[in-house]
Amino acid sequence: MSQERIVRIERDILSKNNAFARENRAGFARDRIFALNFVSSPGSGKTSLLVKTIEALKSRLEVSVIEGDQQTSNDAERIRATGARAIQINTGKGCHLDAHMVGHAVETLAPAPGSALFIENVGNLVCPAAFDLGEAHKVVVLSVTEGEDKPLKYPDMFAAADLMLLNKADLLPHLDFDVGACLANALRVNPRLQTLTVSARTGEGLAAFVAWIEASAARAGAAAKLPA
Amino acid sequence: MSQERIVRIERDILSKNNAFARENRAGFARDRIFALNFVSSPGSGKTSLLVKTIEALKSRLEVSVIEGDQQTSNDAERIRATGARAIQINTGKGCHLDAHMVGHAVETLAPAPGSALFIENVGNLVCPAAFDLGEAHKVVVLSVTEGEDKPLKYPDMFAAADLMLLNKADLLPHLDFDVGACLANALRVNPRLQTLTVSARTGEGLAAFVAWIEASAARAGAAAKLPA
Repeated sequence: MSQERIVRIERDILSKNNAFARENRAGFARDRIFALNFVSSPGSGKTSLLVKTIEALKSRLEVSVIEGDQQTSNDAERIRATGARAIQINTGKGCHLDAHMVGHAVETLAPAPGSALFIENVGNLVCPAAFDLGEAHKVVVLSVTEGEDKPLKYPDMFAAADLMLLNKADLLPHLDFDVGACLANALRVNPRLQTLTVSARTGEGLAAFVAWIEASAARAGAAAKLPA
Repeated sequence: MSQERIVRIERDILSKNNAFARENRAGFARDRIFALNFVSSPGSGKTSLLVKTIEALKSRLEVSVIEGDQQTSNDAERIRATGARAIQINTGKGCHLDAHMVGHAVETLAPAPGSALFIENVGNLVCPAAFDLGEAHKVVVLSVTEGEDKPLKYPDMFAAADLMLLNKADLLPHLDFDVGACLANALRVNPRLQTLTVSARTGEGLAAFVAWIEASAARAGAAAKLPA
């Protein structure tokens, strides 16, 4: 198959995806649903971070979750243990979620108007960068065990994200990891990227992340729950 | 685009890749070159591991390296600092190396007959699983910071590998990571998988890995260098 034909096919796939993403985005706007698309390497700690974030948010903002993985429904089960509703998409051979899959999952999940929707993508720093799911923001999670150079090596993902969570900060004393160099690399790729250093294990930085979500959700019209 | 058409296109791409992989494999057999294809998540520590392995091997077995990354040539430079020859392939938007790219890199690199060739794939636990490069073995590197569940969530990769290196063992005292559970998960997916626990930082387990390479290379006809 010629390189040109592959490029044309890729363009067809992306343009079809973008049409579905526009539909998702219109539905989210209509129902004031604040959708975040969490992307990262495998094992960056996305699910643990989502569990802790939902625990911290749930009295104030309803959250439901779409989980993407090649196989298993372990992550959806971990999310459900918080009381949040979750649906698992298994992509099989697929290396990313697409907007069509997400549209179907949203129909089934039926998130409440004014709520937040967290989409946890397949662990992969390449393919999910190209696929808009209709989200308000991509949030890229990078763990400090992965090395400072990842934003330079996978620039498309860091360019596509609006927020970077630098996770597993509790391990910094045991690593040769230069936080300043990592942030500088990320900002070289995307000067508008916001960054927060967090630890799902110790809770460090989670209050700041929760505040970011509440402020961004409020701007999108997703209402914080009134205190009971 | 219909699902059927996508499946047909994927089959075309893979069958074309397999033809190039067969050519690479025939060339490696002719020249007694022992090729390993290293696959993992981003940030599992593949390059550090290769640097240490080349240092330990270089008096006995000549090694050259093909480095795959979306962007940057940092990894090839790190390899060259050991004295080994290395060539960098930047895949741009691509999420894996393919056999055609590797064939061209081999022409340029021209590894010596009887030597070893290490191919470091793009960090990605999904896409590289499907692409044979003509290697003798896929070696999957999993770091202990990534969680015990990765073999179950990315089964294609662990099924395609012959050896798993469980890396960053030096961090085990600081993590809630169950080595036994991880190995059990890996063996559920691939009962024939061999496993070694290593640390590129402390050198733990590297002697065993080097011994595995030398024994496997000798079976493939790649000669150990004679002592000077």
